[in-house]
Amino acid sequence: MTDTPRRLVAEALGTALLVATVVGSGIMADALSADDAVSLLGNTIPTGAILIVLITILGPVSGAHFNPAVTLVFAARRDLAPGLALAYVAAQIAGGIAGSLLAHAMFELPMLQISTRARTDAGQWIAEVVATFGLLLTILGGLRHRADAVPWLVGLYISAAYWFTASTSFANPAVAIARGLSDTFAGIRPADVPAFVLAEIAGALLAAALGGWLFVPDRNAPR
Amino acid sequence: MTDTPRRLVAEALGTALLVATVVGSGIMADALSADDAVSLLGNTIPTGAILIVLITILGPVSGAHFNPAVTLVFAARRDLAPGLALAYVAAQIAGGIAGSLLAHAMFELPMLQISTRARTDAGQWIAEVVATFGLLLTILGGLRHRADAVPWLVGLYISAAYWFTASTSFANPAVAIARGLSDTFAGIRPADVPAFVLAEIAGALLAAALGGWLFVPDRNAPR
Amino acid sequence: MTDTPRRLVAEALGTALLVATVVGSGIMADALSADDAVSLLGNTIPTGAILIVLITILGPVSGAHFNPAVTLVFAARRDLAPGLALAYVAAQIAGGIAGSLLAHAMFELPMLQISTRARTDAGQWIAEVVATFGLLLTILGGLRHRADAVPWLVGLYISAAYWFTASTSFANPAVAIARGLSDTFAGIRPADVPAFVLAEIAGALLAAALGGWLFVPDRNAPR
Amino acid sequence: MTDTPRRLVAEALGTALLVATVVGSGIMADALSADDAVSLLGNTIPTGAILIVLITILGPVSGAHFNPAVTLVFAARRDLAPGLALAYVAAQIAGGIAGSLLAHAMFELPMLQISTRARTDAGQWIAEVVATFGLLLTILGGLRHRADAVPWLVGLYISAAYWFTASTSFANPAVAIARGLSDTFAGIRPADVPAFVLAEIAGALLAAALGGWLFVPDRNAPR
Repeated sequence: MTDTPRRLVAEALGTALLVATVVGSGIMADALSADDAVSLLGNTIPTGAILIVLITILGPVSGAHFNPAVTLVFAARRDLAPGLALAYVAAQIAGGIAGSLLAHAMFELPMLQISTRARTDAGQWIAEVVATFGLLLTILGGLRHRADAVPWLVGLYISAAYWFTASTSFANPAVAIARGLSDTFAGIRPADVPAFVLAEIAGALLAAALGGWLFVPDRNAPR
Repeated sequence: MTDTPRRLVAEALGTALLVATVVGSGIMADALSADDAVSLLGNTIPTGAILIVLITILGPVSGAHFNPAVTLVFAARRDLAPGLALAYVAAQIAGGIAGSLLAHAMFELPMLQISTRARTDAGQWIAEVVATFGLLLTILGGLRHRADAVPWLVGLYISAAYWFTASTSFANPAVAIARGLSDTFAGIRPADVPAFVLAEIAGALLAAALGGWLFVPDRNAPR
Repeated sequence: MTDTPRRLVAEALGTALLVATVVGSGIMADALSADDAVSLLGNTIPTGAILIVLITILGPVSGAHFNPAVTLVFAARRDLAPGLALAYVAAQIAGGIAGSLLAHAMFELPMLQISTRARTDAGQWIAEVVATFGLLLTILGGLRHRADAVPWLVGLYISAAYWFTASTSFANPAVAIARGLSDTFAGIRPADVPAFVLAEIAGALLAAALGGWLFVPDRNAPR
Repeated sequence: MTDTPRRLVAEALGTALLVATVVGSGIMADALSADDAVSLLGNTIPTGAILIVLITILGPVSGAHFNPAVTLVFAARRDLAPGLALAYVAAQIAGGIAGSLLAHAMFELPMLQISTRARTDAGQWIAEVVATFGLLLTILGGLRHRADAVPWLVGLYISAAYWFTASTSFANPAVAIARGLSDTFAGIRPADVPAFVLAEIAGALLAAALGGWLFVPDRNAPR
């Protein structure tokens, strides 16, 4: 990887483009269709696609976390120093918020918004644990066995998780915060964000524990 | 591959996440759309995507069968000892059932359900023979010619088979049993499961016979 | 590649599964949706996906033509002896017809059908020239520059061509004949097949001429 | 790469097939569906797919720009001589116009059309800056880190950008001009084209500046 300024720019830029895609495609899809499943397809395909692109082009610069839960796991595994991890998280949150504003600017909506969309029940909290558990398992297993395929695996995983989790899989505290600032299809009421973040951290740590045992580093991979 | 406990955990975990995706995305898609083809798209894309992810990250651990019909063929080809094959099947069935329960928990539905959806006619039995025949042909041909592409081939094959078979391609006895315990979009009446399982085993053995002749192991592949 | 019996079985089997997918997914998508664009999506995704699978697993056996227009071009380039090319075409036509019958059996429709769907106007003939021109250009350019990617390129090309050509891109005389025997979404009136076949052959030969000049064989590819 | 005539034919042919796909799939999707998001899906999937195909097969011939904004950036980086760059742009514009005419011929519409679809507001201009910025960042980052994946990255990026930008991401002056000559789903009023072209050039130059710093050429990529 590269020096700290380039890393932090990559994390902020990547998270901004990711959130601009999540929020922007949600606005577009919601405006164009009366069928909510069609809107979710129009939200899923762009999100999966941009993840593959961003992780491929920015991965070699910063690791392409774009996600405090991912950064936390790498810091816990001592792959990232604590100070740098904190800077990553700050860059991700700032980038994510910028991404929401950028989406609003493109669609000529008020730049500053507060979401009013309630997302709070036990099912959705379980869903966020599962969603983030699966995301980290995908990243850790992918890095262990097919590092070149990680961008694809993450894009495909999130495409699936948008549909099989009751919360449509936020799985990312920085994205959750940014979506709190968008009163559109992809929004979430700010009051509901903290529980999502806690569930995401729980899922990430669970995956780190299981993945550390399941994907043993000294095994000779047979393929 | 690795030791038996990790293998069995990988088989159970992978089948659980596969079934959670099949059942969960079915619930989500059915709730969001009035158009059944849109719902099937919202069921197809997540299933194909998660298969690519799960086979890539768990394949080096256990082979990533997640399917008793696949395990049966590998046991018949003496690639897997009979005792281990039985343990695989038990892990797959237990994992599949856990996946149904997990999907219900995320969507706040009753955990224990019995499907009432009838799936019983000669056309669907032919469809299950064809679906599982094609799945095993894909796996055996893929392993022979492009082992690194097998996760993709299986995900793409199932995405196609959801649409070209009259049964929407279960093609997996463990998944069929787990779907018997979900009275949702992806469900199947338990009384209709045994015929599906027999058809799946017939299709798998047919593919093993044809594939053993067509994909000759000692040929020099030209590509 | 391999001996003649395996080659011919691969051509027949591959064309059968391709046509079963085209016809079967058309029946499924048409039955499930009132929106013709959703039905075409439900026809496109399975067709593209199965092409990637079938060309990957059967390409090393027979070259995975599944298409008399492709076989004609390879015969014209002397990559295939005339007698074997004729046998390929016979296997493709027989396989294609079997694929239509198989789709009907799975969906419990009358096995033998004659399509009544008119597909005859100058726009559709131009479209078939363009569709088959593009298909052969894709194959010839792919083989020249990225032979390992040909299954993907063909699957993606056909997914695009289903939408940008007025005929939904048959681009294959064996598939056109087989679709003449299915009075469903994917059908074509048998009287309209010969003009489609002529247009397809014209497009294929045009691509062979241009591709022979554009993709010069002795150039050092820079990537 | 190859000699100038083949390069210019590749640029013209590629841009023609790209525009034929954008315009043709727009016509098809719009005719088949009453749901605009379904139509946009039917426009997105073919466009992304054909980009992957065309860049793979024509990239080794001409670099597969198909886009004056891309050619401009490569000329500015001195990867392409100014005279050749001008010839590229001329071939792209001529090819793009031919692609619109071809789409009209296939769908039996009047060959020569002038779009009446207004696309003019500050949001769409911001969107074109963002869309072209992201496209060039994708190309420059892709060439730096995973040159073999560039066709995929561009196809996936445009698939996302169709949805997250308010303009549905033209991101290409030659395509914008060609779409001005089609009064269909993908059209744009000719009077609105110049502002789009300026925004696209601004976005491209912005990405070239940032990318030149972010993707440092002498860094050892760690993957």
